[in-house]
Amino acid sequence: MSNGVLVVVSGPSGAGKGTVVRRLIEKYEGIFLSVSATTRQPRQGEIEGIHYFFVSHDKFRSMIERDELIEHAEYAGNFYGTPADPVRERTERGEHVLLEIDIQGGVQIKKKLPDTVLIFLAPPSLEELEKRLRGRGTENDEVIRNRLNIAAREYAVAKEYDYIVINDTVDEAVERIHSIIVAESCRASRISL
Amino acid sequence: MSNGVLVVVSGPSGAGKGTVVRRLIEKYEGIFLSVSATTRQPRQGEIEGIHYFFVSHDKFRSMIERDELIEHAEYAGNFYGTPADPVRERTERGEHVLLEIDIQGGVQIKKKLPDTVLIFLAPPSLEELEKRLRGRGTENDEVIRNRLNIAAREYAVAKEYDYIVINDTVDEAVERIHSIIVAESCRASRISL
Repeated sequence: MSNGVLVVVSGPSGAGKGTVVRRLIEKYEGIFLSVSATTRQPRQGEIEGIHYFFVSHDKFRSMIERDELIEHAEYAGNFYGTPADPVRERTERGEHVLLEIDIQGGVQIKKKLPDTVLIFLAPPSLEELEKRLRGRGTENDEVIRNRLNIAAREYAVAKEYDYIVINDTVDEAVERIHSIIVAESCRASRISL
Repeated sequence: MSNGVLVVVSGPSGAGKGTVVRRLIEKYEGIFLSVSATTRQPRQGEIEGIHYFFVSHDKFRSMIERDELIEHAEYAGNFYGTPADPVRERTERGEHVLLEIDIQGGVQIKKKLPDTVLIFLAPPSLEELEKRLRGRGTENDEVIRNRLNIAAREYAVAKEYDYIVINDTVDEAVERIHSIIVAESCRASRISL
């Protein structure tokens, strides 16, 4: 068995997943971000195979039927999913793959691939999360209240995750996630002596 | 629940446990070596409470009866054991405690304290282990053959351990064990949000 690890990073909107994940793959070699397949149209500047694999609804449906996705979900009428092949190829080479998806997606993957490592990235507190969301200045009160409600529900599910990383500072969160990846690749179940 | 971790490091004689463990506690704050209780006589330079807690056979027997030891074993007519109180006090403060004991001791502790993290420190290969043992120049052929036989048996049990760290270089082994400690202190089961 190879010791490349598939790592899911989830957490409330505003927890800083995007920043932490970007910093992590910039800083450490051998860790890659998974590229999702989607039926939505490319936006300005988005590159096929880098940001997404852009596919038709028909193609997406056939990927589901052939079990070529390790998870998929629908948002606002578009489908998003994680192709299995690139993940398997990388982890077989001993490379690690990061996936930034929501909690439902994480739980879905863990059922299919029990070796997957689920990390819940949490803001230091719900108060701090509210401050960060308000600090953005882009969302109105109702949206923020809604996000906080979702976050509170996600906290309750976090116990199903393998690890909880508190994002007090980006650097510390990056180091902790990197440590988790190193540790997981030393798991007895992944190593043959 | 606190997130201090009790870590057992085991591995064949010649794997470099002593060097790695010493380097680890020198380099990182908040990680301490557990001090064993023993019935054997202090040797030149050994300090009570630093190298061992030196106790009488009567005292040791009463510690066993009162369940004050998390594991114990007999070697060459002397008893050795790990007092529970100092370990509990440190981990409750969020400090990590390292224990360098044999595989049987590790398995014994895990049954009593399932949160314990078991790390098997392995030499890169049995061939390399033989080279290291011969390189010491202190043991005869029979002793070395015996050690290698024990090591081969220990390898078979290593699968019961949580992690396997290959000690190709001391620095890498130290970093890997440190990563395991950081990761384990992020375990969802140890964190309350």
